[in-house]
Amino acid sequence: MSLTRNHKGHILAGGGLSEPSVSRLIIYKRLLLELAKKGTHSVFSHQMARRVNTSPEQIRRDLMGIGSDGRPTRGYQVLELEKRISTFLESARPEPAALVGLGNVGRALLAYAAGRLPSLRITAAFDINPVRISHPIYGCPCHHARDMARVVRENGITAGILAVPGSAAQAVANELFAAGVRNLLNFADARLQVPAEVFVDHVDIGVSLEKFAYFARRNSSAPE
Amino acid sequence: MSLTRNHKGHILAGGGLSEPSVSRLIIYKRLLLELAKKGTHSVFSHQMARRVNTSPEQIRRDLMGIGSDGRPTRGYQVLELEKRISTFLESARPEPAALVGLGNVGRALLAYAAGRLPSLRITAAFDINPVRISHPIYGCPCHHARDMARVVRENGITAGILAVPGSAAQAVANELFAAGVRNLLNFADARLQVPAEVFVDHVDIGVSLEKFAYFARRNSSAPE
Repeated sequence: MSLTRNHKGHILAGGGLSEPSVSRLIIYKRLLLELAKKGTHSVFSHQMARRVNTSPEQIRRDLMGIGSDGRPTRGYQVLELEKRISTFLESARPEPAALVGLGNVGRALLAYAAGRLPSLRITAAFDINPVRISHPIYGCPCHHARDMARVVRENGITAGILAVPGSAAQAVANELFAAGVRNLLNFADARLQVPAEVFVDHVDIGVSLEKFAYFARRNSSAPE
Repeated sequence: MSLTRNHKGHILAGGGLSEPSVSRLIIYKRLLLELAKKGTHSVFSHQMARRVNTSPEQIRRDLMGIGSDGRPTRGYQVLELEKRISTFLESARPEPAALVGLGNVGRALLAYAAGRLPSLRITAAFDINPVRISHPIYGCPCHHARDMARVVRENGITAGILAVPGSAAQAVANELFAAGVRNLLNFADARLQVPAEVFVDHVDIGVSLEKFAYFARRNSSAPE
């Protein structure tokens, strides 16, 4: 297994950065791009913290993790820091990925990825519904799922994105693994069994909705 | 402000549980339901940890947070623990919510929430596209966005879900706040400025894709 985990079970990136740290770096990068557009030259950790919903201490720790120190009197240089984070996160060419499932979630992902992500490109999409695969979507060629293993293997794709119903998720995942996929982003409503060498991440919209319901109820019923 | 934050900036729930703890409790609940369906009576924290991608210590800490201790020789009782988590998370009736934006993401959320979530019900949906609002979707009445403030106010809805383009997100959010919304789940690709009393959570699909690309690249290029 080529990725390690810390005591919380989080995947560790280079330099011991955890998954949550990488997520935050991506969010910092977006904020910095936004600030740069507005012509802002420098920013303090407490200003960033207010904007991205975390603490100044957390931000300083994350940025120290990629070798960036702010200066107490001037803060961080916006453009310099954005470039450093981008260099850390991105490679020279985007990672090619296969998307399986062209329902609402799948189409939303294609729309999102089309041209906007420097680090990921969906190069092939699959569904079993002939209507959905009758023409390219946002420039991405769409195939019948029966051709999935062949297309993935022929193009050497090692990253897969699952947006199929939960009931189909494990079978599709198994087929992807057999075709050489080693990294899986799962939007299906199902926990998957995966081989040890596979990196799997899970975006669970149902959990997000339930968590929101919990905090919304507390916030509505709590005294002002 | 009726919700407090810990040193990491995480919202704290009752008993000092953080947002990540609540997310994990939701995932434990799903696993326990699955185990119960298979007729499993008891489970150890290390068995749960393997299935939900965290550490046994984290699980024991989370469950202690809601007053559940496992027994070293028998583990946790599946049904009893599921019930305790549900009681902690859910109220007698689902939280009503307004959904704004009926593009791919919005429709996926409606499909997801329809009947499946005990804690949340989308009771009104809004869009500016007449085609999208011409009939109820999954039983949810759909209105033109120009009627949003009125419908939200008349129904006393305090929870809003944003699935509009990033460029429209802040303006829609402001209108929702003015109409009485105090809790916002944001799927739009934009960071929002919100009043201090508002609870806001953000599901950023772009960040998920970028994070996945980062770890996929590392896993593919690392030596086996």
